[in-house]
Amino acid sequence: MQFSSSLLENAVNEFAKLPGVGKKTALRLVLHLLKQNTIEVSQFADVIAKMRSEIKFCQRCFNVSDGDICSICANSMRRQEIICVVETIRDVIAIESTQQYNGTYHVLGGVISPLDGVGPDQLNIESLVNRIQKERTEEIIFALNPTIQGDTTIYYIQKKLMPDQHVRVTTIARGIAFGGELEYADEMTLARSLQNRLPVESYVSNR
Amino acid sequence: MQFSSSLLENAVNEFAKLPGVGKKTALRLVLHLLKQNTIEVSQFADVIAKMRSEIKFCQRCFNVSDGDICSICANSMRRQEIICVVETIRDVIAIESTQQYNGTYHVLGGVISPLDGVGPDQLNIESLVNRIQKERTEEIIFALNPTIQGDTTIYYIQKKLMPDQHVRVTTIARGIAFGGELEYADEMTLARSLQNRLPVESYVSNR
Repeated sequence: MQFSSSLLENAVNEFAKLPGVGKKTALRLVLHLLKQNTIEVSQFADVIAKMRSEIKFCQRCFNVSDGDICSICANSMRRQEIICVVETIRDVIAIESTQQYNGTYHVLGGVISPLDGVGPDQLNIESLVNRIQKERTEEIIFALNPTIQGDTTIYYIQKKLMPDQHVRVTTIARGIAFGGELEYADEMTLARSLQNRLPVESYVSNR
Repeated sequence: MQFSSSLLENAVNEFAKLPGVGKKTALRLVLHLLKQNTIEVSQFADVIAKMRSEIKFCQRCFNVSDGDICSICANSMRRQEIICVVETIRDVIAIESTQQYNGTYHVLGGVISPLDGVGPDQLNIESLVNRIQKERTEEIIFALNPTIQGDTTIYYIQKKLMPDQHVRVTTIARGIAFGGELEYADEMTLARSLQNRLPVESYVSNR
C-alpha cells in the first residue's frame, strides 16, 4: 500500500500489529477515526494508554483489577471460600457473564504445556496452593479448557493439594452443548456425557 | 459482558465503537495490548492521537497530507497536468498501489446523491473546476465507482467544464475483471466490455 502521508501510514501500521487486523482493515479503522473529531480520537487514545499503564492484577486471584485487590475478591457478598480456577482473564469474563457463579477466581495464566515451554513455575500455581492452605477454602472448581494440557494441570494441582483433604475438588461438566447435535459430537464428549448422566428432574429444574 | 476492572471495560468500549468491531473482538484486542509492554501501548495511543490532530488535507487535491500540499502534488516528477478524480482517500491509495499512474488526484469526498442529502456543494467540485481553469489541465480521468450516483457526478462535472473544451475527459475502463468469469458478469458490464472491445495487440502488450 502506498500512502501520501506518513502520519496515516504510521497509524495504519500500528493498527495492523493487532491480532487478526490486516492492512486493509487497519486502513478502514484509521479512516473511520479520521472522520471523528480530534477530541473523540484523543479520548480513544487516552483510554487505551491509561488502561495499560494503570491496570493492575489482583494480588489474590491475578484477575485484572483497578486496585491491589479486584472487585470480586473485595466483595463480601461473594462466597470467598469457593475458588474457580481458570486459565485466563477471558474465562473470568465468560463465567461472570453467566451471572450463575457467586464465588471467587484464581487465574493461572495458562496451563502446563512442556511443548510450549510452560511449566508449573510460570503459572500462578504456588500462590493457589498457598491461598488454599491459608484461607480455609471449601471447594475448588476447575474450569479449564478440555485439553490434555488442561487435564495435566488439574492432575498436577490436585497432587500438590493431597495433604489438604478437607478441600472439595470439582471440574465443570463436559457434555453436549445446548444447540449441539449428537451425531456431530466427538466420541470423547459423548462418552463422558453418558458416564455423567443426570437425573431428568435436576436437568429440568436447571433450565 | 461483566468486567471486574473499569479500566478494562472502558478500553473495550472504545474499541467496540470502531466499525466492524464487536464486544468480543474488542476484548481480544484489548487483552492483546495488555500483554504488550507499557511503552509499546503508549506508542500505539500516541501515533493514533497524533495522526488525528496533525493530519492535514492537501489544499490542492484534498488528499490526506502531512503538510499544506500533499507529497503527490509537491512531486515535480509527476504529471501535474493530469488529474484523476476519485471519491475518497481510499481510492487514491488503491490507485497508487498499482504504481501505474503518474499524474495527480482530486478527492471529491463522495458523489452526488440527493437521497443521502449530498449535493454538489458538499463535494470538492468547485475547487476542481477552478483548478482546471487555473492550471491548464490537459486530461481529467474519472475513477468513480460504477454507480448511478457516480455517473451523475461525472455528468454534472462535465457540464460545468463545457466552456473549457481543451480538456480531455476520460473514465477508467469498465469490463470483466481479471479472474472474473463471463457467465457470472452482470449484463451491463458484459455489454460495456463488448462495446469497448480492444484490439488484441494492445491487450497483449498491456499484460
